Amino acid sequence: VSLCKKIANSKWFQNSITIAIIIAGILVGIATYTEFAEKHHVILELLNKVVLWIFVAEVVIKMIAEGKKPWRYFYDSWNVFDFVIVAAAFLPFGGSSVAILRLLRLLRVLKLVKALPKLQLLVSALLKSIPSMGYVTILLMLLFYIYAVAGVFFFGANDPIHFENLQMSMLSLFRVVTLEDWTDIMYINMYGCENYGYDGNMNLCTLSSANPLGSVTYFVSFVLLGTMIILNLFIGVIMNGMDE
Amino acid sequence: VSLCKKIANSKWFQNSITIAIIIAGILVGIATYTEFAEKHHVILELLNKVVLWIFVAEVVIKMIAEGKKPWRYFYDSWNVFDFVIVAAAFLPFGGSSVAILRLLRLLRVLKLVKALPKLQLLVSALLKSIPSMGYVTILLMLLFYIYAVAGVFFFGANDPIHFENLQMSMLSLFRVVTLEDWTDIMYINMYGCENYGYDGNMNLCTLSSANPLGSVTYFVSFVLLGTMIILNLFIGVIMNGMDE
Amino acid sequence: VSLCKKIANSKWFQNSITIAIIIAGILVGIATYTEFAEKHHVILELLNKVVLWIFVAEVVIKMIAEGKKPWRYFYDSWNVFDFVIVAAAFLPFGGSSVAILRLLRLLRVLKLVKALPKLQLLVSALLKSIPSMGYVTILLMLLFYIYAVAGVFFFGANDPIHFENLQMSMLSLFRVVTLEDWTDIMYINMYGCENYGYDGNMNLCTLSSANPLGSVTYFVSFVLLGTMIILNLFIGVIMNGMDE
Amino acid sequence: VSLCKKIANSKWFQNSITIAIIIAGILVGIATYTEFAEKHHVILELLNKVVLWIFVAEVVIKMIAEGKKPWRYFYDSWNVFDFVIVAAAFLPFGGSSVAILRLLRLLRVLKLVKALPKLQLLVSALLKSIPSMGYVTILLMLLFYIYAVAGVFFFGANDPIHFENLQMSMLSLFRVVTLEDWTDIMYINMYGCENYGYDGNMNLCTLSSANPLGSVTYFVSFVLLGTMIILNLFIGVIMNGMDE
Ligand code: NA
Ligand code: NA
Repeated sequence: VSLCKKIANSKWFQNSITIAIIIAGILVGIATYTEFAEKHHVILELLNKVVLWIFVAEVVIKMIAEGKKPWRYFYDSWNVFDFVIVAAAFLPFGGSSVAILRLLRLLRVLKLVKALPKLQLLVSALLKSIPSMGYVTILLMLLFYIYAVAGVFFFGANDPIHFENLQMSMLSLFRVVTLEDWTDIMYINMYGCENYGYDGNMNLCTLSSANPLGSVTYFVSFVLLGTMIILNLFIGVIMNGMDE
Repeated sequence: VSLCKKIANSKWFQNSITIAIIIAGILVGIATYTEFAEKHHVILELLNKVVLWIFVAEVVIKMIAEGKKPWRYFYDSWNVFDFVIVAAAFLPFGGSSVAILRLLRLLRVLKLVKALPKLQLLVSALLKSIPSMGYVTILLMLLFYIYAVAGVFFFGANDPIHFENLQMSMLSLFRVVTLEDWTDIMYINMYGCENYGYDGNMNLCTLSSANPLGSVTYFVSFVLLGTMIILNLFIGVIMNGMDE
Repeated sequence: VSLCKKIANSKWFQNSITIAIIIAGILVGIATYTEFAEKHHVILELLNKVVLWIFVAEVVIKMIAEGKKPWRYFYDSWNVFDFVIVAAAFLPFGGSSVAILRLLRLLRVLKLVKALPKLQLLVSALLKSIPSMGYVTILLMLLFYIYAVAGVFFFGANDPIHFENLQMSMLSLFRVVTLEDWTDIMYINMYGCENYGYDGNMNLCTLSSANPLGSVTYFVSFVLLGTMIILNLFIGVIMNGMDE
Repeated sequence: VSLCKKIANSKWFQNSITIAIIIAGILVGIATYTEFAEKHHVILELLNKVVLWIFVAEVVIKMIAEGKKPWRYFYDSWNVFDFVIVAAAFLPFGGSSVAILRLLRLLRVLKLVKALPKLQLLVSALLKSIPSMGYVTILLMLLFYIYAVAGVFFFGANDPIHFENLQMSMLSLFRVVTLEDWTDIMYINMYGCENYGYDGNMNLCTLSSANPLGSVTYFVSFVLLGTMIILNLFIGVIMNGMDE
C-alpha cells in the first residue's frame, strides 16, 4: 500500500502517464492515415495495447494506494472518467464496434486535462463559470424557443429546408445568431422559395409564399435581440473573470 | 380578499402558474408537429383550455387580492401584459385567425419572464441599459441614414435588389454591418450588375454601371465606421455593467 | 450685434436650426423615391430653398454675433464645416451636378451632430480616441502592406481578381480580416483558379497554378495576426474608455 | 570606435535608416506593378542597391561601435534579424531566386518595427503576452486535435474535400471557428455529399453517406466550445492588459 502511494505520488509515475497519453494521442492521429495505419498495423496495435495496460496499471496502483478503502478512488470525478475510459476497452462490443473503439481511444486524449494540473485548473474554472451564465442562458433559450416556434408557423410551408420542424428551426436560428449567411434564409422567406435560393431543391418548394415585411421583422429583430443577449453573456463572463 | 391575498403570495400558487406556463410552452411547441397535433387534437385543445383558465384564475385572484381597489392590479406593467395576453384569447377573431391565435399562445411563454423573479430582474436590467446607449444609437442611425440615402443615389440604378429604395438600402446596410457577404454587394456595384452576382436576376439588371472607386470607398468606410460605433456601443454597455 | 448674440444663444433659435436640419434630412430621404419626388417637385424644391436660407441666416447671425471680428466665427472647426456646406450650394456647377447637389444636401444632415451638444461630445470623444490607436494602426498597416505585396508576388498570376495589383490585394486582405468568405480566396490559390471559384470568369484565369502549402500558410497566419492586432486595438480603446 | 558610437547614436543616423527602410518599402511596392517596374528597371535596381548599402553600413557602424567586442552586436535579437536580412542578399542563389530575392526585400520592411522605438515596444508587449495565453492555447489545440481526428473518422469518407486527412480536417475546423460558411460543411455531412454542396466535384463524392444527428452535434458543439475557449483567450488578454 505505502509503496503504491509512493509510486502514485512520484514525479516519474505522473510523467510516464503523461507520455503514455501523448503516445495514445499520436496513435489515434496516425490511425486517420488509413494506408499508413494498415501497413504498420501490427506495431500500432501493440503500442495501443501497451498504452492501455499502462492506463490499467495506473487505475490499479491508485486504487491500492487508497489502502483499505479502494472505493475512495471514485470520490474524485476525474478518476471515474479515467476508470470508465479504461474499463470500456474491455467491454465486448459486436463486430461493428470499430467506430466505438476509435472514439474510446480518442477520448483517452482527454486524460491530458487531468495529467496537466494547470490545465485541470483552467477547465475547472471554465466549468465553474457556467452557472453564473445561468439566467442569461435561460433568457437566450426562451428567445430561441419563441422564435423557433414562430419560424415553423410562419415559414415552415415556404421554407421546409430551414423551418420544417422545431429542431431544424432551432438549428437555423443558431446559424442566424452566428451571422452565418443569415440573409440567405431571410431572402428565401422574403421573396418565396420559388424566387430565391431553392435552385437545386425545387422539389421541396411546394408552397412558395413571399412575406417581405414578416421575414425582415423576424430576422432583423432576432439578430438584434440574439446578439444583445450573447453580448450580455460575454460581459457576465468577463465581470466574473475580473472578480477572481 | 385576505384569502386571495394569501393565495396570490403562496409558493404553491406561484409554482403552479410557472408549471402552467411551461405546459403552455410545450403545447405550442407540439403544435408545430402538425401530424401529431391533429391526431391528438382533442386532448391538446383541452389542455390549452385548462392552461387558459388557470391564467384567467390568476388574473382574477390577483385583482381580488388588491381589495377595494382592483385597478391597482394594472399599476404593474407586467400585470398589464398578463391581462392583455389572457383577454385577447376571448376576443372574437374572424375565420382566418389561426395565425393570431397561435401567436397569442406563443406569447404566453413570455409570462415565464415574470414567473421567475431573477429572470425578471435580468430583463429589467437589460431594458434599463438601453437609455445609456442613447446617443451612440442616434449616431449609428445617422450613419445608417446618410449611407442609405447615398446608397440609393449612387447604386439604386445599378443594383435595385439591394438599393432600390430607402428601406431596402437600410436592410442591405444592416447586412453589411453584420459583415454577412458584404463583399458581394460591393463587387456588384464595383463591376456592375451585368458582370457580377445578378446571374439569376438579369431581368432586374437594366442599368448596369461599374463604379469601382465609389463602391470600394462607400463599403470600406461604412464597415470601418459602423463597426467602430458598434464597438463603442459595446464598450458603453460593458462600462455600465461594471459600475453596477 | 448684441441682438444677434442674443438670438444666437437663444433656445428657440437653436431648436429651429435643429428642426430645419431634420426637415433637410427628410427632404433628402424623400428625394430617393424618384416618382413621388417628381410629382411634388415644386413644393420639395421650395422647402429645400427655405431650409437653405435658414442655414444662411444661421451663418450670418453667428458671424454678426462675433461683433467686430467676424473671422472669429471660423475658429470653431464645426462652424467651418457649416459654412462650407452652405457656401457650396451657391457655387456654379455644370449641368452634371445633380449628384454633387444631392451629396451636398445629404451632408447637411451631419449638421445634426453639432446641433445636439451631447452628440457633438460623443463624436469629439471618438475622434480624440483615434491618436491612442496610433501605433497599433501603424502595425496593422505594416501587416497589410507586407501581406499585400507578398499576395501580388505569389498569387497575382493565379488569381488576378483578388491580387492583380497592390490596391486589389489590400481590398482582399481587408475582406479576409472581416472573415468574409476568406476561405474562398484561400481555396482559389490552394487549388488554382482552374479548379475552384473562377466558374464565371474563366477568361481571367490564364495562369492557373496551385500552391496548397503557401496559400494555407499565408491566409491562416494573416487571419491569426490580423485578428490579434485588431483585438489589441479594441483592448486599447476599452482601456482608454475606462480611464475616462 | 568612438566616432562610430557617436554616429550610431545620433538622431540623423537613425532617421536616415528609417527613411531608407521606407524607401525600401516603396521600392518593393512598386515592384508589384510589373509594367512600370520593367520600364524603370535601371533606376529601381540602383535605388535597391543604395538602400542595401545603407543597411550594410548600418551593420558595420554598429559593429565597430561595440569596440573590441563586435560579437556583442549579436546580443540584441533585433540586430541578428538585421544582419540576416542584409547578409542573405549576398548569398548566391540559383537562377530561380527571384521569389526569394523579392521576399528578402519585402522582409526589410520589418526593420521599421525596430526603427520606431514605440512600435518595438508594442511588438515586444504583444510577444510577451503570448505565454500568458499558454494553457488556454493548449486547451484549444486539444479541442482542435480531438475534433480533427473525429472529423476524419466520421466524415472522411463522405466529405474528402474537408476531412480527407488530419491537416485538411484542422484547416476546416479553423474555418468553422471563424464562423466562415460553417453551415455548408455541416449540411454536406448532414445530407451526404450527393445531395449538398459537391456540385462541381461529384467525382470526389464516391462514398456519400448522410449523418444528420452526428453532423449537427459535431458542428454545433464545436462552434460552442471553440468560441467559448477563444472568448476565454480574449478575456485573459484583456485582464493581462489591465494589470499593466
Ligand atoms: Na461571416
Ligand atoms: Na459568410
